[in-house]
Amino acid sequence: MAVRRRSSRDIRSESRLDVLHALLSLGESNRNELARTTGLSPATVATVVSELIAEGLVEEAGLALGGTGRPTTTLRINRARGRIAGIDVAETYVSTHLFDAALAQVSSADVALDEHLTSPEYVVEGIIRSLKAATDEVGIELDSLLGVGVALPGLVQGKAGVTAVLAPHHSWSNIELLELLRERIAVPLVVENPLKAIATAELWLGRVRGASSMVTVNLGTGVGAGIVLEGRVLRGATNSAGEWGHSLLVYEGRGCRCGRRGCVEAYVGAPGIQETLREVDPHHPLVVTDSQRDFIAALAAAMREQTPDVAVRETLDRTARYLGSALADLVAIINPELVLLTGWTAWALGDHLLPGTAAQLTAEAPEGAAADLTLGVSTVRGNSVAIGMATLAFERFLGDVGLVTTRASIAL
Amino acid sequence: MAVRRRSSRDIRSESRLDVLHALLSLGESNRNELARTTGLSPATVATVVSELIAEGLVEEAGLALGGTGRPTTTLRINRARGRIAGIDVAETYVSTHLFDAALAQVSSADVALDEHLTSPEYVVEGIIRSLKAATDEVGIELDSLLGVGVALPGLVQGKAGVTAVLAPHHSWSNIELLELLRERIAVPLVVENPLKAIATAELWLGRVRGASSMVTVNLGTGVGAGIVLEGRVLRGATNSAGEWGHSLLVYEGRGCRCGRRGCVEAYVGAPGIQETLREVDPHHPLVVTDSQRDFIAALAAAMREQTPDVAVRETLDRTARYLGSALADLVAIINPELVLLTGWTAWALGDHLLPGTAAQLTAEAPEGAAADLTLGVSTVRGNSVAIGMATLAFERFLGDVGLVTTRASIAL
Repeated sequence: MAVRRRSSRDIRSESRLDVLHALLSLGESNRNELARTTGLSPATVATVVSELIAEGLVEEAGLALGGTGRPTTTLRINRARGRIAGIDVAETYVSTHLFDAALAQVSSADVALDEHLTSPEYVVEGIIRSLKAATDEVGIELDSLLGVGVALPGLVQGKAGVTAVLAPHHSWSNIELLELLRERIAVPLVVENPLKAIATAELWLGRVRGASSMVTVNLGTGVGAGIVLEGRVLRGATNSAGEWGHSLLVYEGRGCRCGRRGCVEAYVGAPGIQETLREVDPHHPLVVTDSQRDFIAALAAAMREQTPDVAVRETLDRTARYLGSALADLVAIINPELVLLTGWTAWALGDHLLPGTAAQLTAEAPEGAAADLTLGVSTVRGNSVAIGMATLAFERFLGDVGLVTTRASIAL
Repeated sequence: MAVRRRSSRDIRSESRLDVLHALLSLGESNRNELARTTGLSPATVATVVSELIAEGLVEEAGLALGGTGRPTTTLRINRARGRIAGIDVAETYVSTHLFDAALAQVSSADVALDEHLTSPEYVVEGIIRSLKAATDEVGIELDSLLGVGVALPGLVQGKAGVTAVLAPHHSWSNIELLELLRERIAVPLVVENPLKAIATAELWLGRVRGASSMVTVNLGTGVGAGIVLEGRVLRGATNSAGEWGHSLLVYEGRGCRCGRRGCVEAYVGAPGIQETLREVDPHHPLVVTDSQRDFIAALAAAMREQTPDVAVRETLDRTARYLGSALADLVAIINPELVLLTGWTAWALGDHLLPGTAAQLTAEAPEGAAADLTLGVSTVRGNSVAIGMATLAFERFLGDVGLVTTRASIAL
């Protein structure tokens, strides 16, 4: 990968993305407001809006009378332009979410996967079943989609352009799975790893587009970081940037499912939090909760009780310290403006974890590195992996019609 | 800091920097070769060269007869365009290096600092004495310099634009020192922290300009990382990116001079390596070596002996493992193409450390993250902090004359 040259085409592409982002967040708008929101000149906004209207992506919604009496044309995304699918492939399920062109969800369908059946054929079959169920729900054909984005855990792309899928629990023989996907899905298709998808969802739908550097930290079964620098997701040499979940927290510490020891994930992933509870109180009833999501929900429920469970509180305190220490390393290296926690653990426990995490982060980060840092919980809800994949497929579509110079992930 | 917009001015600026970089690395060249080397069109190269000649930065050196018989004009940097100073301010010394416009060193001068005297007045006095000694050596006035770059440890710049200097050993009251510097130096002045300076030196003078992502890892008394993404040094929200030396290696491990425990620096900084030798053999004569540079040189000398010192070998083996583990975290998060070790410890011990470091890194990095990674020792020698600061001052100068849109550090 050589240094990417900027061109005037890139500049036009960014203006178009800026206007689209603004329309997505404002809902309805007009040319003046778009110029104010994006910081682009009124002339540029006018040109971009014409281009988007010509492509059928934006429509004029009517006339609005402003305070000065002169009517302005209201603009909005043309939802009917088409549907986009975002697919989250995890170890135990495939979840497809279907969105309209304004990125509002129109349907979804989950299919369970048996994590012991890991052949590419089985996984692709699950993807197609889930995708068909979601398109059937709104009565459209798979072939009518503007695009499909599929998140695959551990997706790696090397210098040679070879794509490998190195999921901890899967022995997918990489290329094979991608070839099968390509055979079954006839519309434009992109694949990416979940961390990049989540960061992209935040960029498109979060409240942070102005930040020059942001890290989205996903807390679920696995944990990882999506790093956004100057509005772009950091991919790294082999698309592996952000694998902070497998950076070292405790030297020779707990075994991690990746095979190494002491990884961040072994402490702040949902199974890691359960392990901490076991250390705090080996006989606590929640130690044997089978479902990780149920376990996390039960911790949140316990914290809502009038007399909080002492072991649960201690578990969350320790988790906050682990998380703060682990984030301090990320902050030392990246020095972002903003760190946003996301994923179901963050949504359920974020409010309880934030104070302790922030205190530990401030204590452990190098002087100055956390001085201007904002730490919070993402406002993007739902399946942010699927949302992110839909936005990546949408970017690919915008690239195919010549509106943006696509830097989208891996197009198949 | 908002997202930085690209403009066509930036594109022209990058073309000019590309041509300058190419001329610096080629020594002498011609327009055709510059087009091949930079990947720019011959027309763009011709325009850029005219601009650089008009500014007195490039000169025509004569005619060369090519194989095809048609003579081509040889070009080179006009060394006489002016001198630039790069100043490395450390805890125990100030070192000024003076360069010509082709970034070749023309003189240098060191001044010792008493690390117990840390008033801004004392430090600035040292800087000025060292700068005067270097300019006197070549018989020029301080006021004739094109620019001065000063590296200050722990330089931090927050959102409010306030600049603070948070050096571990200094209690500099930030602004004060910068104001004193500004009063004493009348020519264009930039300040930056040493990690950013080292990364910039690598960008200008190393062999890596084509890499999309590179990390320079400085190993000396302190350790840290300079992160270069797509040809630009990552500064971070408060200019603190790359403080990997104070990320966690060993949970509740050795005390670090920053006041926290278990930092990378406490294991792979020169005093940390001496501490490891002490753990391996408390009675080893080198345990009491006073000067850190002498200690590192003595380790290198011991490894050159026919019968290597067993304790020294064990110390280096452990250091390589610590370094490999610590780099694995950096690689997990950034996923760079290239990691280059630099600084006097790396130059003295790099060959001994590399194999063990690479093995540990590969074992500890997440799958795929180190797949295409190149690990090596930087080819830039000398005081790379001073070299980097001179290049930053040079960038500032190029910005002042309108040739580049300067993204240089902090201009005073």
